[in-house]
Amino acid sequence: MTAKEKLAERATEVESYLQSCLRDRGIPERLLASMEYSLLAGGKRFRPVLTLSWATMLGGDRDAVMPFAASLECIHTYSLIHDDLPAMDDDDLRRGKPSNHKQFDEATAILAGDGLLTEAFGLMSAASIVKGLPADRVLRAIHVLATAAGSGGMVGGQVVDMQFTGRNGVPLEELRTMHAMKTGALITAACQCGAILAGGTDRDIDNAREFGKSIGVAFQIVDDVLDVVSDTDTLGKPAGSDVAMGKSTYPALLGLEKSKELASQHIDDAIKRLDDYSGDEKQFLTEMARYIVDRVY
Amino acid sequence: MTAKEKLAERATEVESYLQSCLRDRGIPERLLASMEYSLLAGGKRFRPVLTLSWATMLGGDRDAVMPFAASLECIHTYSLIHDDLPAMDDDDLRRGKPSNHKQFDEATAILAGDGLLTEAFGLMSAASIVKGLPADRVLRAIHVLATAAGSGGMVGGQVVDMQFTGRNGVPLEELRTMHAMKTGALITAACQCGAILAGGTDRDIDNAREFGKSIGVAFQIVDDVLDVVSDTDTLGKPAGSDVAMGKSTYPALLGLEKSKELASQHIDDAIKRLDDYSGDEKQFLTEMARYIVDRVY
Repeated sequence: MTAKEKLAERATEVESYLQSCLRDRGIPERLLASMEYSLLAGGKRFRPVLTLSWATMLGGDRDAVMPFAASLECIHTYSLIHDDLPAMDDDDLRRGKPSNHKQFDEATAILAGDGLLTEAFGLMSAASIVKGLPADRVLRAIHVLATAAGSGGMVGGQVVDMQFTGRNGVPLEELRTMHAMKTGALITAACQCGAILAGGTDRDIDNAREFGKSIGVAFQIVDDVLDVVSDTDTLGKPAGSDVAMGKSTYPALLGLEKSKELASQHIDDAIKRLDDYSGDEKQFLTEMARYIVDRVY
Repeated sequence: MTAKEKLAERATEVESYLQSCLRDRGIPERLLASMEYSLLAGGKRFRPVLTLSWATMLGGDRDAVMPFAASLECIHTYSLIHDDLPAMDDDDLRRGKPSNHKQFDEATAILAGDGLLTEAFGLMSAASIVKGLPADRVLRAIHVLATAAGSGGMVGGQVVDMQFTGRNGVPLEELRTMHAMKTGALITAACQCGAILAGGTDRDIDNAREFGKSIGVAFQIVDDVLDVVSDTDTLGKPAGSDVAMGKSTYPALLGLEKSKELASQHIDDAIKRLDDYSGDEKQFLTEMARYIVDRVY
């Protein structure tokens, strides 16, 4: 089985939980339809899979961690819905389908995003209240995830990214910081929370965080490279769109070959963080990390 | 000291916490300015004061509960920012000042709301991680608040309210349910979380919930009545605006006198839920409940 096939298999497991997690909660019909339209629109379920894998590798209970893992997909999805809004990136399409505000309307899309973000924290708390994980672990993971997704993390990164648009010559360091906030923080938190929920040691949690940071950077570089070299897109944007919008990208700043090299280095760094572990789950995380960068070769 | 003065005194305590709670968190300058513009725009700080009072009455640690109490104001503020957006109620003014998207821009307002909602959950977890409240209590309170603020509560209520606009003859029962979701759920959760965080018994938590439900309904009726009879507004809307928008209101459905009577009944119900307690804080909660309805007489 290839890494891609394995990832798809894991995604299916997450998928079936996502299909039920908003049901029977008294959500008005139109709002539920809008939330599920985007939440169940496919995708690799990359972030929940990372949480589950880190938790499993450290001996955690997969089933108990699932609601928390699903919350990462709710947060990712809400951010896509809000980013697509006319006042933000004004995207009519997302994964080849009308974006949420096109399919429904702007007000519903804003509220569907708000709803998904709030439900995410309900799901996190359910990992303890319904599934019985120790409250202190869950609370610590909530703190990590709120910080990563919040105004000093993902939300802040979107503000900084918007300020970059049309600005020429953004230095590499600023680009790096923006990406670390906008996309890196949530990927990092996904790994870190898996380790926390499994009751990992401080060293395990450090490993998870650094693994997440490294694959987060690699993920972004590869995304920039693919935006230049192919029709395949990974973050749902039309190919070449970043360049067309005058955004700074890794290939624009470093060239294509140096960018690929840098991505590979980060993947190597990530994999080194798995040295402490063994078994199937380590193997899977290694393959998943390699898969990120293999797509550009 | 009148109830109004006492409430103002309590609000000052919350205010000084709110002024610092978003600082030194790596929030980009413009985003922080936008978040604080709305968070620090005044207001009675009604919800945090309820949380603190219920916690104090049950012997809880005021200082430890403060971050959680502040999170209720963050959630309330984000909901106002998003409700004012052009795609929603399209309000240019809020408490006599330009609404957030008028002062900044639409994208920043959406993200300031997202940021405040996410920081709210960071603050909740800080009640345990920084202030040392038992993790299981904080987690239970997070679960209650996420449910109240989410798509089956406050966010869902806004969707239902929008569906009412321009629709004639909305029955009282549907109006009641909408308000219970849109404004009642958060007020109820404010009381309930105070009791949970103080380590209250199931009976205490029931009392807090029913107290909150009753004053929530009274609050809404009074708001509708004031909208008809005076220039004073309580929820930041211009006087008469609900009637002008063809919305169903309590006075429209029941008449003014019957509406006032109903509000008084709900306040009496609320105060009965304080029978188990004694002391200054009971006194304060009683006066605060009376103050809600006294404003229409």
